[in-house]
Amino acid sequence: MPIALVLEKKRKITLRDIDLDLTLGDRDVRIAMDVVGICGSDIHYFRHGKIGPFIVREPMILGHEGAGTVAACGSAVHHLSVGDRVCIEPGIPDFSSRPSRIGLYNLDPSLTFWATPPIHGCLTPEVVHPASLTYKLPDNVSAAEGAMVEPLAVGLQAVHKTGVAAGDVALVLGAGPIGILVALSALSAGCARVLIFDPASKKVEMAMQYAGIEPLDAVVGGLSEQVLKATNGWGVDIVYECSGAAPAFIGIAGCLRPGGTLACIGMPTAPVPIDIVALQVKEIRIVTVFRYANVYDRAIALLAEGKINVKPLVSATYPFPESIEAFERADGGHPQDVKIQIAMR
Amino acid sequence: MPIALVLEKKRKITLRDIDLDLTLGDRDVRIAMDVVGICGSDIHYFRHGKIGPFIVREPMILGHEGAGTVAACGSAVHHLSVGDRVCIEPGIPDFSSRPSRIGLYNLDPSLTFWATPPIHGCLTPEVVHPASLTYKLPDNVSAAEGAMVEPLAVGLQAVHKTGVAAGDVALVLGAGPIGILVALSALSAGCARVLIFDPASKKVEMAMQYAGIEPLDAVVGGLSEQVLKATNGWGVDIVYECSGAAPAFIGIAGCLRPGGTLACIGMPTAPVPIDIVALQVKEIRIVTVFRYANVYDRAIALLAEGKINVKPLVSATYPFPESIEAFERADGGHPQDVKIQIAMR
Amino acid sequence: MPIALVLEKKRKITLRDIDLDLTLGDRDVRIAMDVVGICGSDIHYFRHGKIGPFIVREPMILGHEGAGTVAACGSAVHHLSVGDRVCIEPGIPDFSSRPSRIGLYNLDPSLTFWATPPIHGCLTPEVVHPASLTYKLPDNVSAAEGAMVEPLAVGLQAVHKTGVAAGDVALVLGAGPIGILVALSALSAGCARVLIFDPASKKVEMAMQYAGIEPLDAVVGGLSEQVLKATNGWGVDIVYECSGAAPAFIGIAGCLRPGGTLACIGMPTAPVPIDIVALQVKEIRIVTVFRYANVYDRAIALLAEGKINVKPLVSATYPFPESIEAFERADGGHPQDVKIQIAMR
Amino acid sequence: MPIALVLEKKRKITLRDIDLDLTLGDRDVRIAMDVVGICGSDIHYFRHGKIGPFIVREPMILGHEGAGTVAACGSAVHHLSVGDRVCIEPGIPDFSSRPSRIGLYNLDPSLTFWATPPIHGCLTPEVVHPASLTYKLPDNVSAAEGAMVEPLAVGLQAVHKTGVAAGDVALVLGAGPIGILVALSALSAGCARVLIFDPASKKVEMAMQYAGIEPLDAVVGGLSEQVLKATNGWGVDIVYECSGAAPAFIGIAGCLRPGGTLACIGMPTAPVPIDIVALQVKEIRIVTVFRYANVYDRAIALLAEGKINVKPLVSATYPFPESIEAFERADGGHPQDVKIQIAMR
Repeated sequence: MPIALVLEKKRKITLRDIDLDLTLGDRDVRIAMDVVGICGSDIHYFRHGKIGPFIVREPMILGHEGAGTVAACGSAVHHLSVGDRVCIEPGIPDFSSRPSRIGLYNLDPSLTFWATPPIHGCLTPEVVHPASLTYKLPDNVSAAEGAMVEPLAVGLQAVHKTGVAAGDVALVLGAGPIGILVALSALSAGCARVLIFDPASKKVEMAMQYAGIEPLDAVVGGLSEQVLKATNGWGVDIVYECSGAAPAFIGIAGCLRPGGTLACIGMPTAPVPIDIVALQVKEIRIVTVFRYANVYDRAIALLAEGKINVKPLVSATYPFPESIEAFERADGGHPQDVKIQIAMR
Repeated sequence: MPIALVLEKKRKITLRDIDLDLTLGDRDVRIAMDVVGICGSDIHYFRHGKIGPFIVREPMILGHEGAGTVAACGSAVHHLSVGDRVCIEPGIPDFSSRPSRIGLYNLDPSLTFWATPPIHGCLTPEVVHPASLTYKLPDNVSAAEGAMVEPLAVGLQAVHKTGVAAGDVALVLGAGPIGILVALSALSAGCARVLIFDPASKKVEMAMQYAGIEPLDAVVGGLSEQVLKATNGWGVDIVYECSGAAPAFIGIAGCLRPGGTLACIGMPTAPVPIDIVALQVKEIRIVTVFRYANVYDRAIALLAEGKINVKPLVSATYPFPESIEAFERADGGHPQDVKIQIAMR
Repeated sequence: MPIALVLEKKRKITLRDIDLDLTLGDRDVRIAMDVVGICGSDIHYFRHGKIGPFIVREPMILGHEGAGTVAACGSAVHHLSVGDRVCIEPGIPDFSSRPSRIGLYNLDPSLTFWATPPIHGCLTPEVVHPASLTYKLPDNVSAAEGAMVEPLAVGLQAVHKTGVAAGDVALVLGAGPIGILVALSALSAGCARVLIFDPASKKVEMAMQYAGIEPLDAVVGGLSEQVLKATNGWGVDIVYECSGAAPAFIGIAGCLRPGGTLACIGMPTAPVPIDIVALQVKEIRIVTVFRYANVYDRAIALLAEGKINVKPLVSATYPFPESIEAFERADGGHPQDVKIQIAMR
Repeated sequence: MPIALVLEKKRKITLRDIDLDLTLGDRDVRIAMDVVGICGSDIHYFRHGKIGPFIVREPMILGHEGAGTVAACGSAVHHLSVGDRVCIEPGIPDFSSRPSRIGLYNLDPSLTFWATPPIHGCLTPEVVHPASLTYKLPDNVSAAEGAMVEPLAVGLQAVHKTGVAAGDVALVLGAGPIGILVALSALSAGCARVLIFDPASKKVEMAMQYAGIEPLDAVVGGLSEQVLKATNGWGVDIVYECSGAAPAFIGIAGCLRPGGTLACIGMPTAPVPIDIVALQVKEIRIVTVFRYANVYDRAIALLAEGKINVKPLVSATYPFPESIEAFERADGGHPQDVKIQIAMR
C-alpha cells in the first residue's frame, strides 16, 4: 500500500499507508510525483473539513498542485513518454458533456477534481491520470515551477475571461497567492500597469518585487480617489477582485473606466451587496472565474519564455516525510509566505 | 413664447408658455413634434422631483420619447430635408470625448439628455436638435411607432450588450414596458424562446399576446425549477433583469446555463445582495445597460421590416392640450397600460 | 445483411445488400432511419468519385442528412429512449482532442463523417451512432424537417461565426440550398433584411417566397451600386458568400460597410484573387465556415418555434426503393429544386 | 513664412518657405515640432508622387510621425498646457460620423491625414492640431520615442484587431519597421513567442535583438514545416502578414492552428490569390488593419512602462537642415536601417 498525506477529518492529518487503485487505462499515464504545492483550499479542508457543499466524509488524500515524472504510459498514449517531466491538470471532465463541447469543460457538473471530496489528491508517491490532462514541462521549467502551474492557471483563466488589450491598466484587490498570480497574468497578457491593494502590507511587499506592479495605500476608504489619481481621472480598465471580502466590493465602480470590467475570482462566504446602478451608469461588465480550462499549455509557455516568473513565490519547501510540518506552517498564515511546497522525493 | 408641459416642482405640472432658445445651428434641425410618449422616468420626476442625483431645481419641460417632422435644416445638414418624418435620440454627447471615441457615447459624462435636469424635454411644439441624432422614419413607420423607438432602443442595447446566438433561450424578469420591449428585442435578435416572469399577472398577459413569449407562474420561489423544467435541465442562455427588485436577483444563477449571461436593465433603489459563488461555479457573465448607443437606426429598421411590432403597446393617446390628464393616467399605474402617448398636433 | 444505397464507384450507384457492423456500444443508440436528404456532396461523389483529397476507393453508402427513430439504447444512454424521433449529427470527433476542448470539435482532424470516404453514410434502414450526437425532435418537427437540420446547421454555423447584431442588413451571394438556408439563418439571428444575389433567376425566385429576403438584379457588374442604393450608401453589415464562384468575390468590399464582415461558406475550386487593400481600408473581417459545431439543438429549437421554416424547400420525396431515381433527379440540376429527400420506410 | 520640407513633385523635395495657416482654434494646440520620423509612405510619395488614388498635385509638406512641445493652447483646451511634451495622432476624423460613432474613427471617409494629399505634413517648425488628438508624453519617454508612437500604433492596432490570449504564439511575415513593431506589439499583448520570417536576413537580424522573437530560416518554401515543428504540430495562433508580398500568402493556412487568425497589415499592390478552402477547413479568421484608432494612449503607456522598447530601432537622426540627406538615406533602402528620424530643433 502506498503512503499518502491523508486528511482523516477536520483538523487531523496523518502520513500513512492507504489503499489506492493505480490501474493504468489505455489513455492514462502513471506519474511519480516530484513536487506538490499546498493550496488555500487544502488548508480550508484541514481547518473546516469542508468547503461549501463539499464535505470530507471519508479520509482523503490532500494536494492538487502537482508536478512529476511519467513512470508508465497506457497503450493509446502518444504525446508522452516514460521519463517526461510533467505537470498535471487535476480536474477530469467528461469531454463529451454539453459544457465541455462549448469549450467550458471546467463547468461540467460531472467533473472530478483532486482533493475535492470524495476524490483523492496527489500527496502520494504515484498517481494515475488521463494523459490528455498531463502536460510535458520544457527543460527550463523546474518541477517546483511546474507545481505552480495550477494556481497560475487560475490567474490566466481570469485574464482570458476579462480579455486584456495591450496597454490596459488593471487593479488587483487582494495580494494573496492568487492575487499576485492574477497580477502577473495580467502583466503577461498586456497590461501596462497593475495597481494592487491589500490591507495587509506584508503581502503587498511580496507583490512589489515585480516591475509593473504598483501598491496603493492600505487606507480604509479612498481607494477610488487613489485609482483615479493614478489614471488621470479615467479609471482602470479592469478590476480583478481576489480577496473575496465583501468590503472590497464597495467603490469598485468608482475605480473603473466607462465600459470597464470587473472579474470576480475571490469567493465571498456570503452574498455581497452590490450597487447595480453604480455599475450601470458606466456599463460595467462582470466576469466570474471558476478554476480554468485550456490554459495549462499557455501557462507553461509563459514560464518557459520567462514572461512570468513564479520562483520568488515559493517561500519554503519541505520533504514529503515532513509534510505535516508543511501544513502547520501553511496553516499559520505567515503574511510573508506565498506558497509552501512539498518535495515528494 | 411657445407652450410646453412643464414640471414646476414635485407633483406640479402645468401647460404654459415658456421661454426657449430655438436658434438653429449649422448642423441642427428644427422639428415640429408629432407624438411624445410618457416614460417611467417622467412619472418619477413628477412624483419625486428627482431621480438619484438629478434634482429638478428649476421648471423643466418633460418628455424625451419623441417623433416629429423636420421644419428647418441648418446649412450643413445633408441627410435630412424639410418635411421628413423623424424620431429623435434625446441624449447629446461630445462625440470627441474619450468614451465616445471607443463607441460608448452614451457613457460620456458631459452628455445632456432631454427632461433630465436641467435640460428641457420635448413636450412642446418645436425643438432644435443635432441632425446627427435625428433619424428619418420610413413611410411605413408611424409617428406613434417612432416615439416608441426611444424605449425600444433600451431593449436593443440590452441584446447588443449580451449578444444573442440564434436559438438562445432567454428569461425576462419584469413585464413592464421595458421588460416587454427587451423580450421583443431578444426575439428579434435570435432567441428561439423568451420566458417571462412578473408577479403582476396583468402585465404578463400583455406580454403573452406575442408569439415566442412564454409566461412562468407567478409563484413566490421555485422560479429556477420552472426554468430548468422548461429547458430540459440546462438553464437559459440569458437572463434579462428588468424589474430592479432585489428579490428578483435571488436564484438567477440557478436559472442560467453554465457560461450564461445576466443583463441588468432594471435599476434597484439600493444595493442588492448577490451570491458571487453561485455565479462563479457557472462562470456567469453580467452585463449592465445604460440607455443606448448606435441602435436607433437598427430599431427603425426592425420596425419597418415588421420584425418588432410595438403597436399593441400603445394603450392610449391624448391630445397635447390634455397632457396633464395623460400624466394623471400614467401616474395611476393601471397594470394593463403599457405606454401612454401624447399627440402634439 | 442490410440493404443500402451504395456508391460503387464514380457514376455508379446500386441499391443492394451490404455487410455492416451495427454493434451497439454503451453510449450508442441504434436508429431506424426515417428520412434522408440528398446533399450536393452526395451528388459530387456520384459525379466525380471524390471531393478534393477524399477519394472513394471502396463501395460507400451515401447520405448524411438523416432523421429516424431510436430502436435501441446503449446501457449508458440516459437522455434518449426507444421510440424517440431524432435527427443525427453525422460527424464524430474525439471530444478530448485539442480542437474539441476549445469548442471547435468540427475542426478535429480525427473526426469521421458519414458518407465521406471511407466512412459509410445513412442511406440504409438502420445505423448505430453516439447518443451524444443524436438529438430528440419535438412533436411538431417532422422527420422531413429533421433531415433538414444538417444543411440548416451550416447556415447557423455561418451566422454564429459572423455574429449578427439585431437590425443588421446582410447580403447573400448564391441562392442554392445553402444560400437560402444561410439567408433564413441570418433572418432568424436578427438581420432586419437579407439581400440575395444569384445569376440564376429561378433560384432567386425560390428565395423570394420568404419575407425579409430581397432580390438584387442578376446583372453582371454593378452589384455594389445596387447594395449601396439599398442601404443609403452605408453598405451591408455582413456578406455571406455561398456561391464559391471566383467572380462573386470581386467588389465584395464595395458592398460592405466600414468594419463589416465577409463569411466564406462556398468552396471555390481554386485560389481566388482577393483585393486585400480594398478590405483594409474598411477593416473588413473575414470568417470562414467548416460544417458546424454546437448548433443542432439550436436549429431544432428554431424549427420548433417556427422561427425558420424549411418545409417549402423540400422539392420532392422518393421512397427508398426509388432512391436511384432520386439521385438521378438531384443530378439533373433542375433550378427549381432545392432539396430532394428519400423516405426510408 | 515658415520653412518646411516640401515634396514639389515626384522625386523632387526642397527645404523652403511655405505659406501655412496656423490659426489656433478653441480646441486646438500649436505645437513646436521636436522630432519627425520618415515613414515608408513618405518615401513612396517621394519616389512615385502618389499612393494608389492619392496623387500629389500641389507641393505638399512631408512627415506624419511627429513629437513636439505645446507652444499655445486654444481657450477650450484643458488637458494640455504650454510646455507639455507631446506626440500627435495625424489623422483628423469627424467624430460624429457614422464610423466614428461605432468606435472606428480611422474609417471615417472624411478623415484628413498629415502628408496625404492634399493635406500638409509636419516637417515644419510649427503645426496646429486638435488637442483631442495630441497626447502628453511622460517624462521618461523621449521625443524620439514619441515620434515612434505613430508606426507603433499600427502594430498595436493589429494586435487589438486580432486579440491575443496570454500564451499565444504568433508568426510575423516581413521584418521591416512595421513587421518589427507588430512583433513587439504582439509580445507586449501576451504572446509567449513570436516567430518571424523575412527573405532579407539583415532585417531579421534587427528583429532578433529582442527576447521572444525567433527567426525562421529564409528558405523558399517549407515555411509551414518550420512553423509546425516549432509548435509541436499545432500551428501558431496568429499570423501577422506585414510584407504585402503575394508569395507570403501561400501556405499561411498551413502555419495556423485550427481556429487561428490571420491579420493583413502589409498592403499588396495587386489582388492576391487566396486558397479559401485551405482557410475553411481550419475556420481561419482574417482581420484587416487600416492605420489605428484609440491606441495612442496605450502605446505611450507601454513605452513609459518599458514593455516595448523602440530605442534600438532609430538607426540615424539628422538635423532639420539636413533633412534632404535624411530622405536620400531612407530612399537608399539600407537593409540595416529601421527608422530614420529628423531632429527639428
